[in-house]
Amino acid sequence: MTSYEKDKDRHLMRLRRIEGQVRGLQRMIEDDQYCIDILTQVTAATRALQSFSLELLDNHLATCVVDAARTGGPEADEKVREAQDAIARLVRS
Amino acid sequence: MTSYEKDKDRHLMRLRRIEGQVRGLQRMIEDDQYCIDILTQVTAATRALQSFSLELLDNHLATCVVDAARTGGPEADEKVREAQDAIARLVRS
Amino acid sequence: MTSYEKDKDRHLMRLRRIEGQVRGLQRMIEDDQYCIDILTQVTAATRALQSFSLELLDNHLATCVVDAARTGGPEADEKVREAQDAIARLVRS
Amino acid sequence: MTSYEKDKDRHLMRLRRIEGQVRGLQRMIEDDQYCIDILTQVTAATRALQSFSLELLDNHLATCVVDAARTGGPEADEKVREAQDAIARLVRS
Repeated sequence: MTSYEKDKDRHLMRLRRIEGQVRGLQRMIEDDQYCIDILTQVTAATRALQSFSLELLDNHLATCVVDAARTGGPEADEKVREAQDAIARLVRS
Repeated sequence: MTSYEKDKDRHLMRLRRIEGQVRGLQRMIEDDQYCIDILTQVTAATRALQSFSLELLDNHLATCVVDAARTGGPEADEKVREAQDAIARLVRS
Repeated sequence: MTSYEKDKDRHLMRLRRIEGQVRGLQRMIEDDQYCIDILTQVTAATRALQSFSLELLDNHLATCVVDAARTGGPEADEKVREAQDAIARLVRS
Repeated sequence: MTSYEKDKDRHLMRLRRIEGQVRGLQRMIEDDQYCIDILTQVTAATRALQSFSLELLDNHLATCVVDAARTGGPEADEKVREAQDAIARLVRS
């Protein structure tokens, strides 16, 4: 079972909305809309992706990392290191 | 004519690729893939959106802002203020 | 004259405050304070640096870029390119 | 004992370097240096703060969160929630 099993439908709904936002950006370009208005919508799509990634990370910390910590040993260290690397990528993107 | 007229096709191609990336995220969730691998793909989609927004902003600075600066007056101030606000939103997202 | 001449004192005051925030972080580490509380203060210092950089960029756009645009020619292109690169560095940091 | 006990000296050295970077920004403003060059140094200071925060978060995950996970119960949930909030603040700053 994945760490996000209980949030699966919500994640999918959110990603479909983001997909719709990106298609909306395409229409704005096709319709020659003003670049500042397009940039405003890009920021909205970026924030939506950010929120999705933070929720997925929350799932991961609360299950994968906690469960591995309880088991202990090298698996716990590996899970923590993986989470640290994922957080660094998010912060630096 | 828009500031991005000459880059229109390239922008559309890039946005379709980002749309594909977001659909790919949906498939990873549906296939119960590991959350860390999904987070890696989210970072890639976020960076792609970022690159698109920076190119669109480049178009805007090089045409709308420069043209308005040449005209001068309140229109120039307005264009600069708009660009400043758009940059602040990007930096803070 | 620099683009930030009229804001020089305000910029210096802001930077001294940020310097004080960073020294405050050192004291928190020396006093063995809780890491989450220290992280909260790091975010505050990062945002203060971000606000300073956006104001400095505003100065640059409103004077250096606009003045060069009026002069036109290669100097204008160079100023716009410089601004674009600075914005990309800010967005990606 | 704090989560960062073993890294305390390194953290302090890093923060003193960042303090020096911020003082360097003040000198650049006082010396009327070119705003684009100042912005380049601001990005360097922001990245240094980011690296410090990621290392401190690493310390927290590897000790506070893992230890609390082993203890279990509401304390574990609280530590995970705290880490999630700190990560969200970092990602959004």
